[in-house]
Order: sequence, then C-alpha cells, then structure tokens
Amino acid sequence: MAGITLRGTGVSEGIRLGKVLLYKPFDNQMRSVRETIAAAEINFELGRLQLAKEKSYQELAELIELTRRELGKDKAAILIAQQAFLNDPAFCPEMEKKIQQQRYPAEKAVNEVVEQFASLFAGMNDEYLRERAADVRDVGKRLISHLQGKKGLQLADIQEEVILAAEDLAPSDTVQLNKKYVLGFVTKTGGKTSHTAILSRSLGIPAVVGLGENFDQITDGVFLIIDGGTGECIVNPHEEIIKEYKAKRKREEEALCELEQFTFKPAVTTDGFRVEIAANIGTPAEAKTALEHGAEGIGLYRTEFLFMNETQMPSEEKQFQAYKEVVSTMGGKPVIIRTLDIGGDKELPYLSLPKEMNPFLGYRAIRLSLDRKELLITQLRAILRASSYGKVKIMFPMISSLEEWRQAKAIFEEVKNQLAKEGILFDSSVEVGIMVEVPSTAILADQFAKEVDFFSIGTNDLVQYTLAVDRMNEKVGYLYDHFHPAVIRLVKQVIEASHQEGKWTGMCGGMVGDPLAAPLLIGLGLDEWSMVAGAIKKVKQIIIQSKREECEKLIEGILELGTTGEVRQRLEEFLKGLF
Amino acid sequence: MAGITLRGTGVSEGIRLGKVLLYKPFDNQMRSVRETIAAAEINFELGRLQLAKEKSYQELAELIELTRRELGKDKAAILIAQQAFLNDPAFCPEMEKKIQQQRYPAEKAVNEVVEQFASLFAGMNDEYLRERAADVRDVGKRLISHLQGKKGLQLADIQEEVILAAEDLAPSDTVQLNKKYVLGFVTKTGGKTSHTAILSRSLGIPAVVGLGENFDQITDGVFLIIDGGTGECIVNPHEEIIKEYKAKRKREEEALCELEQFTFKPAVTTDGFRVEIAANIGTPAEAKTALEHGAEGIGLYRTEFLFMNETQMPSEEKQFQAYKEVVSTMGGKPVIIRTLDIGGDKELPYLSLPKEMNPFLGYRAIRLSLDRKELLITQLRAILRASSYGKVKIMFPMISSLEEWRQAKAIFEEVKNQLAKEGILFDSSVEVGIMVEVPSTAILADQFAKEVDFFSIGTNDLVQYTLAVDRMNEKVGYLYDHFHPAVIRLVKQVIEASHQEGKWTGMCGGMVGDPLAAPLLIGLGLDEWSMVAGAIKKVKQIIIQSKREECEKLIEGILELGTTGEVRQRLEEFLKGLF
Repeated sequence: MAGITLRGTGVSEGIRLGKVLLYKPFDNQMRSVRETIAAAEINFELGRLQLAKEKSYQELAELIELTRRELGKDKAAILIAQQAFLNDPAFCPEMEKKIQQQRYPAEKAVNEVVEQFASLFAGMNDEYLRERAADVRDVGKRLISHLQGKKGLQLADIQEEVILAAEDLAPSDTVQLNKKYVLGFVTKTGGKTSHTAILSRSLGIPAVVGLGENFDQITDGVFLIIDGGTGECIVNPHEEIIKEYKAKRKREEEALCELEQFTFKPAVTTDGFRVEIAANIGTPAEAKTALEHGAEGIGLYRTEFLFMNETQMPSEEKQFQAYKEVVSTMGGKPVIIRTLDIGGDKELPYLSLPKEMNPFLGYRAIRLSLDRKELLITQLRAILRASSYGKVKIMFPMISSLEEWRQAKAIFEEVKNQLAKEGILFDSSVEVGIMVEVPSTAILADQFAKEVDFFSIGTNDLVQYTLAVDRMNEKVGYLYDHFHPAVIRLVKQVIEASHQEGKWTGMCGGMVGDPLAAPLLIGLGLDEWSMVAGAIKKVKQIIIQSKREECEKLIEGILELGTTGEVRQRLEEFLKGLF
Repeated sequence: MAGITLRGTGVSEGIRLGKVLLYKPFDNQMRSVRETIAAAEINFELGRLQLAKEKSYQELAELIELTRRELGKDKAAILIAQQAFLNDPAFCPEMEKKIQQQRYPAEKAVNEVVEQFASLFAGMNDEYLRERAADVRDVGKRLISHLQGKKGLQLADIQEEVILAAEDLAPSDTVQLNKKYVLGFVTKTGGKTSHTAILSRSLGIPAVVGLGENFDQITDGVFLIIDGGTGECIVNPHEEIIKEYKAKRKREEEALCELEQFTFKPAVTTDGFRVEIAANIGTPAEAKTALEHGAEGIGLYRTEFLFMNETQMPSEEKQFQAYKEVVSTMGGKPVIIRTLDIGGDKELPYLSLPKEMNPFLGYRAIRLSLDRKELLITQLRAILRASSYGKVKIMFPMISSLEEWRQAKAIFEEVKNQLAKEGILFDSSVEVGIMVEVPSTAILADQFAKEVDFFSIGTNDLVQYTLAVDRMNEKVGYLYDHFHPAVIRLVKQVIEASHQEGKWTGMCGGMVGDPLAAPLLIGLGLDEWSMVAGAIKKVKQIIIQSKREECEKLIEGILELGTTGEVRQRLEEFLKGLF
C-alpha cells in the first residue's frame, strides 16, 4: 500500500508526520430516547433540562470571554447570539411545557423546540435571520450533549501530538487550542486568507487547507504526512515514503539550525550597508521573545491589545506600566510605540463604535484618536512618561493628510508642555513619525518628509488600499500581493522622499518579513526592518549574504516590469543565485 | 416679527421660499378603542384584522418592488424583513387568539402582540436583532393605520409646491416622492453624505440637513426660506427678508438663464484647447436628456441598471436592444459602454453574491466578470452587435493589474472572432479602454498606456481608495475630497502617461462635474469630460472663458501645495478672477 496522495493549498510551510485527530465541534449522534415519560418523571426531566441549560450557558459564557479577549468582540458576536437563545422566554420555557404537558423526555423537547425555531428562521426572507437557524441548532446540540453527559471534543484537552483535521476551524474553536501538541492543520475548506491559514502562519505550524471532497479520505487516527509548502497530504503512506519525508523533515530542521548562527549578527550586506532589524510586538511579554530572536529594537509596538483586554479604558498609570515594561526590557534599544489603531476590524466594547459598511475605509486609528482627543492625550502622556526609561519613538497610524499629522503633532507638543509644567520627567528628544499605509500619504511623501521625523511603511494596509482588496476576503484574496509593481513604486517613493530630507524609513508590514522581499528592500535602501520575531534569522541571513550594489541593479530591472508574476519570478531567480 | 434664522448644513445649493410640509411616515395617534368586544363581534374584528394584514402586506410588496427597482436590493432588505413578520406564525395568529379568547378589539390585539415581540427583540444581546424591535413596531403602526382607515402621508400624493421637512428621509420614503412639487428639503439629522444630501443634489433640489434641535421650530404649514448654499433656514421671515430672498432667488435664476447660451457651444478655451464634453447615463432614456443638455457623447453608460431591474440575467438580445437604443439616439456621437460594475454596494439577487465585510474592497466589477466569464461574454456580444449602429467604445471597471486587463482584452478578442465566424456585423475598430479608479492602476498608468486605447478616471472610487475613506460613511465623510493633493498628482500622472503613448484620457467621476475643478483639469489637459447632464452648461461656461496657458500656470502652483484646503482656496481665487 503506497498511500493516497491528496492535494490542497499549502498555506504554512513545513513537513510534518503524525496521527490525525479529526475534530467535530459536536458529535451529532444522539443516544436513543423514549417517546414519552411517566408523570412521576416530569420533575426529574425538568431538572435535567435545567442543568443542561445552566451548563450550556456557563460554557458559552467562558467561550465568549475567551474569544472576546483573544480575538475581539466581533468574533464573539455569534456566541453571544447563541447564549441569548438560552434566555429567550419562548425557548427553554417552551421545552418545559412540552415536558409537562406532552410528557416528552428532555431530549425530545429540546429537539422539537429547536426545530420550530430553526424552521421559523430558515423561512425568513432576511438573510441574517436565516443564518440564525444554524445558531439555534448549535445551541440545541450543546444542550443535548450536556443532557447525555457527553462533552464535545475540547481542543484545550489535546494531550498528545496530532495533526488536527477539521472541515474548517473557526476562531471560537482555535481560541482554546492547546498549541504545543498540534503538529499541523488540515482542513476541507478555506484558502490562503482563511482563519486557519493566518493562525497557522502566525504559530509557525504547517497547514494544508481547501482539500475539498478529498478531505473525506482523512479519518480519525490515520497516519498522515503533510507538506505545507506544496499542499500535499499523504494518507497511510508506505514505509519508503515515510522514510523519504522524515529525511526531508530532517533537512528542514538542519536548515533551521543553520539559520541559528545569524540570530545575533548585525545585518550588514557584503558591501557594508547596515540596516536595523527590529520586531513587531503586541504585549510587553513579547519584548523578551524579540530580544531572544535577535531583534535590535521594537519597530512596532501595537498598543491595541492593551485596550482590547479591558472592559474600560486603561488608565494612564496602567498604560505607563505596560510601556515602561517594554522600554525597560529593551534596555536602551529603540522602541517605536504606535498610538491606538482601533476600529476597522478591531472593536472596543466600551467605545461603542458605530457599525460600518466598509470598516477598513471607516472610523479608525488616528481618525478616532483625533475625534476623541482624551484617548490620545492619555496615551501620549503615558508614552512620554515611559520615555525616560529608555529609547522611545512614537508613530501615528492611518495618517492620510498633512492636516491630520499636524493636528496629532500639535496635541503631542501640548502634552509635552503640560508634562513639563507638572514637573514630570520625559525624554524631550522623542522622535515622532507616521505610518505610511494610506496611498495618499505615500504619494505625498515628499511633503510629509519635511515635517515628520520618520516613516514606517505598513504594507498590509498599504497593499490593501492600493489594490482595493480586502485581504481577508477569500473571493478576492488572490489579488492581494505586496509584489504588485505599483506597491514597489510607492515604497521606493517613500524611502527616497525621506532620504531627500535626511529622515529615515522603516517598514512593519508583512512584506519585510518575506525573505523574497529582502533583496528588493536592500536595493531600495530601507533603513529599519520590523517583522515578526520568528522571521528575523532568515531575513538577516539574506542581508548578510547579499551585496547592495547587486540589489540596486536588480531594482532597475524590476521597476520596468508590469506584473506581479514577473516581479516574483525575478526575485526568485535572484535568491536562487544567492544560495 | 423678523423671523427665526436657523443654521444647518447646506448640501445642495439654491434658495427656495415656500410652505413647509412636515412629513412623519406614520401618524402615531390612535383613535380610542374599547377595552373588550362582545362575543358577537369576534368574527367582525377577525375580518378587520385580516383586511388590515392584507393591505399592509400589499403595501409593503409595492414598496419593496419600487425600492428594489429604484435603489437596489440592499435598500429593500428592511422592508422585506417587515413583510416577513406579517407571515410569522407567532405574529398575526397570536393577535387572532387575543381577539377570540380575550375579546380584544383588533387594535388592542395588534398593540399587545407587537409589544411582546418588540420587547423580546429589544432585550437581546445581538445588535442586529435589537434593531428588529423598531421594525416590528413599524409593522404594528402600519396595521393600526389600516384598521383605522387612516393612511400615512404618502409622498407620492403631494399636490402643491412645498418645502419638505422631516427628521430624516430614508430611501424607502423618497422612492415614492412626487419630485415636481418639492421645492426643497430640510432635515433634522444627516450630513453631506446622507441619503437626503445625495438625492437632493442629484435632483437639483436645494437642501439643508442636520438642523438638530433647531428643527423642532419648523412646524407644519409654516412659511420658510432655505439657502442650500449657506445652510440657513428662516422660519416665518419678515416681509423685508422675503423680498430680499426673492431678489436673490431671481438673480440665481437669471444666472441660470445666462448659462443656457453655453449649452450647445463647443468647449474651447480662449487659446483654442478643445475638449469633448459628454454625459454619464444609466438608462437608454437618459441619452435623449444628455443631448438636450449639450452632451457631445456618452462618456459613461452604466449598464448595471439594466441588470438590476431584472429577476434574472438579461439575455443578449435584451441587452443588445438597450445598447442599440442609446447608440442610435446618439446618432454617431461616441458612446462609452462600461461592462458590468456590480458588487460592492450594488447587488443582483439572481447572482447570489457573498456577504462581505468590506464590499468596496471585495468581489465586484471586473473581478466578478472574470470569475463568471459567461456574464462578460454575453455582454460583450450584445455591445459589439450594437456597435454597428453608431460609435461605440468599451471600458472595463475596477482594473487593478495588467493581468486583469489582459484577461479581459483576450475575452474581447475571442468574442470578436466568434461574431465574425457567425457572420454577425460589428464595428471592428471599437476602442477598448479601462476605468482608472484603483490607485495601483493610476500609479502604473505608463505601463497600461502601452496596451489600452484610452483611460477614463473614475474619481469617486479613486478618491475613496487613495484616501482610504468610504464616502458614504458619515463619521469619516469629511476626509473625502477630490482636491486632496495626492489625487491631483495621480490624475496628472494618468493624463501624462496616456499622452506619452498617443492615447487619450477621460474622466467620469464627481470631480469633473465640479465647476471648481474645471481650471485644474484644463491645466492638466484632460481630453474627455463626462458628467451628469445638469452640470454641462456651467462647466462649458468656465472652459469657454478660460485660457489654457493660465490654467497650466495655476497647476504649477497647486502641485506645490500640501493640503486640500490650500488647493480649494487657490482654485476659488482663480475662478473669482475669471468672472
């Protein structure tokens, strides 16, 4: 038996071999139940139902809390809606009535009421209400599983190394995932921008998604090889094949070991162009990880998480402590703190932000900070106070016009004056810059360069707006690519504009952590490179083995190309020549 | 009594004087009803309820149809949800029960059930479901109004000239508006991008919105003066004031008359730069209006409306007839037909498009046409067949990469070959161009210019993506401005790139119909100007009275400006110098 080779979309590189754990949120099989119960059993059944309801409610409450904390309020909305059904006066009370008046056992009562509700929703014209049918059924399954004493598989309970296989994984599934035992992911649906894909890349766990019908050949407990680079999955592989892939896996690991030597080396090209390699972080704890991975600074400290884990605005003192922790940990290495970038897909319940048709083009980041100035003032005070403990720089997100920058800068100066008046210590030479992530700002970079201290190019949003593509949208995600020639032109324009005025440019989007982009960014003269800590080694390796002069020649050729495909090909050829 | 002057936001220019009609969708006052009815009356009350239900259902059906046809499916969703309540098995049947078992008169039964439903929804955690409470109450009011034989004021029934005042106007209100009797609009809420603002501008009716608390001083039947330019409203003005405003109004009308002479003049600057002035249309009927307003061609024929007014894909033959009608009406003048720009905020029920988080950055326009090629092929066949009846040009919307353009062009060539094989007549020299509305395409215009026959700059979307602002979003609409310096740079780049390759550039967004933009666009050398027909006269006047050389000098200065405010000021000064 040679095994069956299936092909999906590889979304997170790496080879893994292991036993499959097939994950189904709820086991649908119901133990058989009686048609009716005796009158004497009514109270017992009512009690069972009550208990199942309480357990379900509690379970959902925990899941909501966890989801809200880890993923934001938006993702918790479906679970909140499910929880609301449990309190609906026509839901559980109706089940109780069926137990009392029709002598139904609890399971049957649940199923009947759930189906009544679901079919009511399913028959509605409004699409949103129609989708609630699935939610009601989910609640029903949860109740039944508690009635029958069965618990759905909890991803938190995984205790051995497995390759996790599922139709699809929702944020509410993976939020409770015990990551250390998961070797890899395999899913039936999804593409490069699905939740599973993004999660697996950020965890560094190999993943193959979108297997389609083939997925059904992957059964629970079967032995599987996955290649997150090619998208191949081999079910029940022959021993020869296992040997071959184990060897491949070993080479992978060796290459990773090889990389280790670059961790703490300075990033200098063979002809002496030195760049600063920094890390993006979201919490104070990550600063230590960044150092361990060889970061020479923090190029982007996302302060959102500090605000998202709260039920109210964190106080100046609380913010100060967090900023100070990062700054102290970095011991004099630069830390760029970005002011609040909330809104868009990131919500804060206590700000009660408006619902928007296109949140990515809406009320977010600096737009919100300039509208609710007290937010910005408190944050700037806390950051400035932390500045006396190390090397702090500040940047504003989503700046789209000089007017916005000037407003934000004026508030910054005001806060400095105020602190000075209060006799509070801070570093008066803190540099202030902006994120370049809106096309207008990249296009007008020459004007901005006269006024700001530095730029940091946020490629994720910049690509999104420049190409008019929501990268989270699976129907158009294929259009999202930071190697689009228009994006390269904008990056070039920004870096040149900053140098013209004696300023510097950093980058903190996904592009700078992509090894393929390294020769391009060397050629363009990018000064500061900030990425996920895990990417640093590889990028340092490329920089150290490259010659700036050659990268500049490469750029000349690339600037004449019209398509993303040609750019990628040119870069791949260049990298091949390097190793 | 000198009258009270109130200040709101002027969103559609012009002065109007007249009597106020205060519009409330439903009159909430219920005639008193008895507490209970006699047993003998039960069937009578059931009959009344049934009739009211049928009338309400029918009324909603008509409104849904009208809204869908005029405004798209999206806007009809709320009405559809309301209609669904009437069929909900727990809604009307519950009322009947109350009439039978509790001997309630129909009105009381309606009110009780409506309140039960509404409070159920209002107590839910899910925001969407909470909003349904308002819908249930609306349905209740509609039922009551039919039970009591009162009809809510129908905007279709207005029979005398009035200034329409309302808290706010929804698309479902204005869809039935009898436009010819409405002198102006005044609303309590809303801003520059609210529905009322957009509607009033497109109808050329003066409007003041966002009066806030002051609105309550405007009572039904009161005499009012509004100035849609300054945002002033004068309630019960003194006779002197009336005289003054009548004089202003007269001067306005004279200036409009003055403009008439420019309608059919060619648009040539004093130093001989000739541009083509065209109109944007959405339906074949508008082609005639365009000619009457002095259009020298159609610069944008939006084919979406042809598809939106249907319950299934319009056939090739049906499309051909529509295109042919426009082309024939224009009698040899150029007609640029844009292929389907559906998706985003425009839905087609029969395509069952996915729900998206950011539809403006999603699956729309050419992205959809290249994914569902049969749509594009059918449309191109119909357009090419129509091309033998006049001067047709074709353009593709939302092109963001050379690859997309090449794919679309290849399909176009295939369709031509196929038609030739079938022996069907068409103009083999039809020009094919693209909309420039995604920043990447403007940035890469030099590459595109080598391959396309022409560009048409769609400023509405281009501004939106370049500034990352959804212009329909009231929280950030203030950031949307086509005079942002970055937008001007992109427009310049596109026009220059096309001229470099001997091609031409048109513009069909809101910018080109803005008189303030005319000197700028002359200076940049825009070749073809396509706008709403009503704007043609004014724009022609400015062109005819301008000197290109001076506009070019103006541009040099403008390109050095960093802010939108400075650009506007410079243009306003220039226009003042002209008149």
